Amino acid sequence: MYRIGIDVGGTNIAMGLVDESYKIIEKKSIKTSENSSPKEMIRAIADGIRELIAGLKSISEQSESGSLNDLIDAIGIGVPGTAELDTGKILYANNLGFEDVPFLTELKKELGHELADKTFFENDANAAAIGEYITGGYNVPVFVMVTLGTGIGGGIIINGKLLRGCNYAAAEFGHMSLNIDGCDCNCGRKGCFEDYASAAALVEQAKEAMKSPEGKESLLWKGISTIDDLDGERFFEAVKAGDKRAEAVLNGYCNYLSEGLTNLINILQPDVIVLSGGITRAADLFLDKVKDKVAKEVYSRASKINTKIILAKGISDSFYVGIIGTSLVYKM
Amino acid sequence: MYRIGIDVGGTNIAMGLVDESYKIIEKKSIKTSENSSPKEMIRAIADGIRELIAGLKSISEQSESGSLNDLIDAIGIGVPGTAELDTGKILYANNLGFEDVPFLTELKKELGHELADKTFFENDANAAAIGEYITGGYNVPVFVMVTLGTGIGGGIIINGKLLRGCNYAAAEFGHMSLNIDGCDCNCGRKGCFEDYASAAALVEQAKEAMKSPEGKESLLWKGISTIDDLDGERFFEAVKAGDKRAEAVLNGYCNYLSEGLTNLINILQPDVIVLSGGITRAADLFLDKVKDKVAKEVYSRASKINTKIILAKGISDSFYVGIIGTSLVYKM
Repeated sequence: MYRIGIDVGGTNIAMGLVDESYKIIEKKSIKTSENSSPKEMIRAIADGIRELIAGLKSISEQSESGSLNDLIDAIGIGVPGTAELDTGKILYANNLGFEDVPFLTELKKELGHELADKTFFENDANAAAIGEYITGGYNVPVFVMVTLGTGIGGGIIINGKLLRGCNYAAAEFGHMSLNIDGCDCNCGRKGCFEDYASAAALVEQAKEAMKSPEGKESLLWKGISTIDDLDGERFFEAVKAGDKRAEAVLNGYCNYLSEGLTNLINILQPDVIVLSGGITRAADLFLDKVKDKVAKEVYSRASKINTKIILAKGISDSFYVGIIGTSLVYKM
Repeated sequence: MYRIGIDVGGTNIAMGLVDESYKIIEKKSIKTSENSSPKEMIRAIADGIRELIAGLKSISEQSESGSLNDLIDAIGIGVPGTAELDTGKILYANNLGFEDVPFLTELKKELGHELADKTFFENDANAAAIGEYITGGYNVPVFVMVTLGTGIGGGIIINGKLLRGCNYAAAEFGHMSLNIDGCDCNCGRKGCFEDYASAAALVEQAKEAMKSPEGKESLLWKGISTIDDLDGERFFEAVKAGDKRAEAVLNGYCNYLSEGLTNLINILQPDVIVLSGGITRAADLFLDKVKDKVAKEVYSRASKINTKIILAKGISDSFYVGIIGTSLVYKM
């Protein structure tokens, strides 16, 4: 039996066929034009699903007429927004420009009844948490995943069940304010966690440092012509090269990240917080600092047992994480 | 069948015998001297339990020799600290000066085996949440109680099960930082929720306003000789009397409270947040403001379903809450 996972992003739709040992045996990527209507996107996804299934039939021993039920266990779709499971609607997806779109309902119609019953959707960060939880073999009462990307998202799994909240919008960790008098956040609040501790925020903090008088000599400028060429990779190269300015930026970033994680720990005391996102590829440069700071700050620091902060097992390939995660959302 | 609830505080131990319809049919209060050793306190509690049971036997139809099993369902103790359920230890209780005390283990020994198996303990804020959840007949997937007192505590109940966290220290809402550059908190962090939004913080904010040049004329000064005589009750009297200064303080307080609640909602999206603590007796003066502000700030504000913010049903009597709550901790 196989599963299909589909990760809908602002610029790409990643799709894959996953086998029972969580291996992607076939994958494809569809470019989404900026103004894709929900209808166009749904048709493209349905076409992609049919292609994956056709390919599967040709390589499997099943004949063309073989039942889909014997081939496909489940199809899962992750969307960057609020997936209302009871209505099949995407309530709001900023990056797709969708509001109140009957996404799952229409996709099911497009797929036909045989596949419709096997098709599920979920918020993409929740899907990633489900994928990490299941494939990583975590068996803990309170599991939290925090994804550091353009923003900060995540998922909470308690006693093996995803915490969706009353409106399927739980675990918006990025919009926990750490500084209610701080900078404006795109969510309308001030000083949110993601404004300080997302991967994008780190790059912004580095750019600020580069502009300062002492920053002019920084290795952060090495090999780039304009400040906008700075990215995470170049930033961490400067840190590795011992650039003091970059190090200071990283220390500040670690403090912010630690404060947000400490808040989450004081609220949930998870057994584990799993960090994910491309930035964690450089975690050897900052994870220990974050752990040290959190250990000093948490309310439960006298406890013998404390939250483990670790890296996601699927960090190195967000494509992989998206497909595996969504292929498993039917499990929760 | 009856239950015994025992709420251990810094100055008093409240005890009560509770019937099956959650009515306290007998109660007593023991003063704890400031330097009570754990041993003394445990003996006093055991004596109190025996007295309650003796009284019960005399009023019930059971003879003196009747089995305790037929009379007492459970005994619950709430402690103001971290109750390690697996070891029976109080890990840390600031107000009692206890650290690593084998409290439950010793109390069980003192009570003898017949009662030992029926005796449970729990953190006091968790116990209050359990009591409110069960007696209030809440039947929601995600229940959060936030207690506004000297500090801010609370409890999280998910799918009918208390979230204790990996070290029994979850739901320390008061130590979520809202301002990482803010004032020093006694927990070692900066700008914690309880430093701004506890009942004690409100009184402090009012005192600050009284000291300001414009505050000299405020009704907050009415009927008191020194600033330290100001308490919550007098504060709300000034608000009711239309004092502009007191109103401004209350508006500021509502903002802080709203920010903390908004963080909790963005993380957990609970079906309900129940506010408790003596300050909620004046909730008609501030609850609507808080709800309005939260509704504007939450990340899920486009949702049709949103967290209800309501008052605890047991708010008017913390004595009642403590006894009923602890009498029910065995249920979770």
